[in-house]
Amino acid sequence: MIYNRDEVTQLILANKVSKGIKWHQVADAIELSNEWTTAACLGQMTLNKKQAEIVGKIFSLPDDAIAWLQIPPYKGSLPTAVPTDPLIYRWYEIVSVYGSTIKELIHEEFGDGIMSAIDFSMDINREEDPKGDRVNVVLSGKFLPYKEY
Amino acid sequence: MIYNRDEVTQLILANKVSKGIKWHQVADAIELSNEWTTAACLGQMTLNKKQAEIVGKIFSLPDDAIAWLQIPPYKGSLPTAVPTDPLIYRWYEIVSVYGSTIKELIHEEFGDGIMSAIDFSMDINREEDPKGDRVNVVLSGKFLPYKEY
Amino acid sequence: MIYNRDEVTQLILANKVSKGIKWHQVADAIELSNEWTTAACLGQMTLNKKQAEIVGKIFSLPDDAIAWLQIPPYKGSLPTAVPTDPLIYRWYEIVSVYGSTIKELIHEEFGDGIMSAIDFSMDINREEDPKGDRVNVVLSGKFLPYKEY
Amino acid sequence: MIYNRDEVTQLILANKVSKGIKWHQVADAIELSNEWTTAACLGQMTLNKKQAEIVGKIFSLPDDAIAWLQIPPYKGSLPTAVPTDPLIYRWYEIVSVYGSTIKELIHEEFGDGIMSAIDFSMDINREEDPKGDRVNVVLSGKFLPYKEY
Amino acid sequence: MIYNRDEVTQLILANKVSKGIKWHQVADAIELSNEWTTAACLGQMTLNKKQAEIVGKIFSLPDDAIAWLQIPPYKGSLPTAVPTDPLIYRWYEIVSVYGSTIKELIHEEFGDGIMSAIDFSMDINREEDPKGDRVNVVLSGKFLPYKEY
Amino acid sequence: MIYNRDEVTQLILANKVSKGIKWHQVADAIELSNEWTTAACLGQMTLNKKQAEIVGKIFSLPDDAIAWLQIPPYKGSLPTAVPTDPLIYRWYEIVSVYGSTIKELIHEEFGDGIMSAIDFSMDINREEDPKGDRVNVVLSGKFLPYKEY
Amino acid sequence: MIYNRDEVTQLILANKVSKGIKWHQVADAIELSNEWTTAACLGQMTLNKKQAEIVGKIFSLPDDAIAWLQIPPYKGSLPTAVPTDPLIYRWYEIVSVYGSTIKELIHEEFGDGIMSAIDFSMDINREEDPKGDRVNVVLSGKFLPYKEY
Amino acid sequence: MIYNRDEVTQLILANKVSKGIKWHQVADAIELSNEWTTAACLGQMTLNKKQAEIVGKIFSLPDDAIAWLQIPPYKGSLPTAVPTDPLIYRWYEIVSVYGSTIKELIHEEFGDGIMSAIDFSMDINREEDPKGDRVNVVLSGKFLPYKEY
Amino acid sequence: MIYNRDEVTQLILANKVSKGIKWHQVADAIELSNEWTTAACLGQMTLNKKQAEIVGKIFSLPDDAIAWLQIPPYKGSLPTAVPTDPLIYRWYEIVSVYGSTIKELIHEEFGDGIMSAIDFSMDINREEDPKGDRVNVVLSGKFLPYKEY
Amino acid sequence: MIYNRDEVTQLILANKVSKGIKWHQVADAIELSNEWTTAACLGQMTLNKKQAEIVGKIFSLPDDAIAWLQIPPYKGSLPTAVPTDPLIYRWYEIVSVYGSTIKELIHEEFGDGIMSAIDFSMDINREEDPKGDRVNVVLSGKFLPYKEY
Repeated sequence: MIYNRDEVTQLILANKVSKGIKWHQVADAIELSNEWTTAACLGQMTLNKKQAEIVGKIFSLPDDAIAWLQIPPYKGSLPTAVPTDPLIYRWYEIVSVYGSTIKELIHEEFGDGIMSAIDFSMDINREEDPKGDRVNVVLSGKFLPYKEY
Repeated sequence: MIYNRDEVTQLILANKVSKGIKWHQVADAIELSNEWTTAACLGQMTLNKKQAEIVGKIFSLPDDAIAWLQIPPYKGSLPTAVPTDPLIYRWYEIVSVYGSTIKELIHEEFGDGIMSAIDFSMDINREEDPKGDRVNVVLSGKFLPYKEY
Repeated sequence: MIYNRDEVTQLILANKVSKGIKWHQVADAIELSNEWTTAACLGQMTLNKKQAEIVGKIFSLPDDAIAWLQIPPYKGSLPTAVPTDPLIYRWYEIVSVYGSTIKELIHEEFGDGIMSAIDFSMDINREEDPKGDRVNVVLSGKFLPYKEY
Repeated sequence: MIYNRDEVTQLILANKVSKGIKWHQVADAIELSNEWTTAACLGQMTLNKKQAEIVGKIFSLPDDAIAWLQIPPYKGSLPTAVPTDPLIYRWYEIVSVYGSTIKELIHEEFGDGIMSAIDFSMDINREEDPKGDRVNVVLSGKFLPYKEY
Repeated sequence: MIYNRDEVTQLILANKVSKGIKWHQVADAIELSNEWTTAACLGQMTLNKKQAEIVGKIFSLPDDAIAWLQIPPYKGSLPTAVPTDPLIYRWYEIVSVYGSTIKELIHEEFGDGIMSAIDFSMDINREEDPKGDRVNVVLSGKFLPYKEY
Repeated sequence: MIYNRDEVTQLILANKVSKGIKWHQVADAIELSNEWTTAACLGQMTLNKKQAEIVGKIFSLPDDAIAWLQIPPYKGSLPTAVPTDPLIYRWYEIVSVYGSTIKELIHEEFGDGIMSAIDFSMDINREEDPKGDRVNVVLSGKFLPYKEY
Repeated sequence: MIYNRDEVTQLILANKVSKGIKWHQVADAIELSNEWTTAACLGQMTLNKKQAEIVGKIFSLPDDAIAWLQIPPYKGSLPTAVPTDPLIYRWYEIVSVYGSTIKELIHEEFGDGIMSAIDFSMDINREEDPKGDRVNVVLSGKFLPYKEY
Repeated sequence: MIYNRDEVTQLILANKVSKGIKWHQVADAIELSNEWTTAACLGQMTLNKKQAEIVGKIFSLPDDAIAWLQIPPYKGSLPTAVPTDPLIYRWYEIVSVYGSTIKELIHEEFGDGIMSAIDFSMDINREEDPKGDRVNVVLSGKFLPYKEY
Repeated sequence: MIYNRDEVTQLILANKVSKGIKWHQVADAIELSNEWTTAACLGQMTLNKKQAEIVGKIFSLPDDAIAWLQIPPYKGSLPTAVPTDPLIYRWYEIVSVYGSTIKELIHEEFGDGIMSAIDFSMDINREEDPKGDRVNVVLSGKFLPYKEY
Repeated sequence: MIYNRDEVTQLILANKVSKGIKWHQVADAIELSNEWTTAACLGQMTLNKKQAEIVGKIFSLPDDAIAWLQIPPYKGSLPTAVPTDPLIYRWYEIVSVYGSTIKELIHEEFGDGIMSAIDFSMDINREEDPKGDRVNVVLSGKFLPYKEY
């Protein structure tokens, strides 16, 4: 019996490593972006029945695990409030260093409100550059104004 | 006498509010992007002498403050490790929820290494959308592979 | 010169105490709910020019303070992550004790997504009860489903 | 042998997922609200003997587990002081942003005291809305004034 | 102008020290217990108009301070979550060491619920003892059972 | 083999639940108060050989567990610095809200020093009351003055 | 007016530095050990009237400050839970590395209980040593056994 | 297979309890002080081959465990930054209350530098006293001056 | 099946201890520095296929473990934000005490930017010294200036 | 009057900025390394009388400030346990990522003990490199073995 969603994530990762599966293969199979698909496999998004069955087949998951994939998980993918992994820390640093800048510029353009992290998409790409390739990321989130009442 | 860079940031913000200055006006005056300029005024980047004098003039800063603008500041623009402001928290949430996804996809494409937050640029724009306008953000950071030695 | 929004909040509170103003008087003056108005005066919402001027008049604020009221503030009204004040702690306790319940029930009814804290309203009322009056609170937030992409 | 209440919660959740049980079915069976029932199953409330036996039957629990359901549990359903799950975080954000507002308004109406989180009920409903359905929540807590002595 | 309740507490303490006032003198003047009176002067309870005026007179407080004494304060009297002062730490240690014991015994006697810290009184006395005098404390709090709904 | 005292506590609790033992039965058997006995069983006090054997018999503990009961345990019965359980939190709140009051009154009566949490006893009782029964607690700790040297 | 004991400590230190006073001179004047005297001046112990007047004279303190010296202070002399100063950290490290050793040996010798930090003295001396002088510290605390009741 | 040093510590403690071994017996067997020996067994010091074999024999450890005893361990013997155990907390309190005193007196005597926690010894003894026996502790650490360069 | 990289690190360490392997032997086998090799074995760097197979052979790892060695790990080798181990703490102390000095001197020489921890190498050596041998460490990191845009 | 060493550091920095002084000029004047000199000016080392007077002259400090420079300061130069400044964070990251590696290699070479952060020197230099200049740092600390006793 599988007791929580974390066990499913561990199963997926263990099988991914031992079978040499790539995330884009999974994304292609369920016809969604790499970003959303990877997040779903890592326990951050919820799959529908059909997607869960495809993912279950790719990673040889038992039926219980396939049922867990269709339940909204308790989200949050990092073990500490300030991440220790250097790649992820750089993103945290961007929030720390540029946080007040982001706030000022979005408010100057849109007024008070937020950029949604739910009605949101992310696209990560390689940008070739002779001085060293760059990681290019596009974030797109709906602006939600604070409601007056 | 001005004892630290935070006092300069407070002076800039107080004058910005009382004079009704916009960040893009400052950016235009020093001929750089809104994002870099705002970050610099908020104590996250270092201005050169000419830029500092222009900024000093716009915000009516004393000479000491203009000198401080040319010194690399102690960076970090948020009062707590987990930000309480809803707009900035949504960015922290993106790191928290998508952190492991970002790590997996960048490593699958580039191998082990990081996306630089130093050789880095950010561009924030309004994307019009009939279902509600969106905030569009492009992040571009050089990929730096871990060095073997 | 006023250096930040917190000084405006302190000014408002100091004048509220010394003049004996009630929050609903302010709400009536700007024709909005008590809840939103109080939040705005305490530095959590942004007023427009007309509202700010009315509030400025009620609390005898200087022009600078009235300008600050129109700038989206850095939000978060509590000094510690776990609140020490007993009234506010009870709300934190509701989140702590019922958090997983709330998550289960909203997901069972709506699927994966969140209840917005932006497109959101709150209404606090006294409900008379012979066994001791009750505080009745209605929270209403738009459901935002996670976007697939 | 079952060593603590958390193991019972894990058993309930694992069976709920593998059998496809809904919380309202459990609530109907013990003739209480969805909210209280779910909280009880997740280890936040205490069942009486009869309720525990019904719940035990629904989730195929061993006798030990049924005994644990009748013991007041160590409450608190979240793994971190600041929740990482986006749905639950929005509730924490409501406390963080509106905390001082809630305090001001309840005190203005009732005087010094608290809104009980024990003599308390919660009702979560879907409110249909053409602009997007809303989550409607009613919280009702007894007001308890501070005692002078 | 007095900007917050903490300034009033500091004023009270500074005058108490310089004038050599005892807490029981204040308690006698407002005809309440030493415990409640001291808590109120230290910013944890709310005085009514008459009490505030008496206290204001004893400590030579300005009118603004007397107004603040009548407003429910943001409670919590310690600078850190784990107190560093040895006397107060011993109480924290009692909660830490005996916390699970207290929980077990109250639940065994009363069922699930809490002992109120609001409908609550405390009485601190010296108990003479040839082996060294003892501090004798009586805590009395109403038991509040969890409500089923 | 039993590797630490926590395993003994879990064994005791698991047997207590499955056998329906009450704490006062254990206290009667070793002829000590409920409070001390419960604390000892929960890993906060040390039993002597005879007491440990009686407790071991009541809870059907193996010999190793009985040996562990006679070793002073690493004390502290709560999983977090600020307790999440509502009943225990109310006690923490008493320390937080009344901490400075307790300090003032004990010092005014006894001078500088502490109330011992070691030469200490606690007595928890039900006090019947038509407005709702009360929890009555008596704490008694030796006063220890700071030594001058 | 002096608002708290910290201001007195700052006054003492500022005068100590500008007048070049040594702690043992103060200790000699009040006829107590260097250790206790220094702790008292740094806001950790309470002086009696005569001692306070002598200390007040040495450091040219105003009357208010002398009154504060006779009030038990809120103790705790370090700004963070884990000290950053290397000298003080080494002591924290001793507690961290040897903590379980100290516990085992004191319990093996004395049974369950504590070594008092109140009925306690400390003596710090230089021990000459050709391989580098040593700091020799003697700690003496009364053993207090846990009371059975 | 033994995966880390903590498992060895748990094995030693479990055998110590079930066999009733005393620390001074171990110390005698390896001809070192009780303090150092206990620290080594608890995973804070490193044994040489001969010592490890003796200790291994006393506690019936497997060969792997004996190998681990000869590897410098990751030190730190307490589960939390602020210890919850009352005996160990009193030592932490000594650092907290006397920390600044220790710093002042060592610096006044020796100048800037530290007292080593590495070239360090500790001796814990019972001092008989009619008013209650005392724990007597001698700490001896080499003074290391800061190097100028 | 191996579920994560930590299990591989534990396997490597357990085998290293039981077989008595030295890090420089591993480094020689894969023809890289001791520093990089050790970091890679401890789960901080990524090996290529050939290196992973050599390491796998030395430590008798199963195929799954060899696959994990080729996946970029979640980095961060310490269990707490402030390290408790004395050797590692001294390095943390260097950052704490000299952090602002390092910042000042690198900025004075290079302008605003960072010293890379990715394009980075470290070399640890013994330097013989009659007054006691020294640890000599050379750190070399590329300077990365902040990009203006 | 100057109340603490931090005020002296602020004075030094404010004058350094307004007068355009370089750290190596100060180092030359007191004939010590840049690293030690900067650390001393930033409140981490202690100057002797002659050095303090020279530094005082360079930064136009008042007599009180010069006296403070000769007192060992409370060390620790960073505002948070995990530094937010990107340059200093990279050093913290080195400790986090390489911490266990450093520990393994120093112990393999030297046995159990530490690398001193007191009998320690640091040398920061620019290393020219066609692919981008590098920061070269040499750390040298005496090895101190744990003492057996």
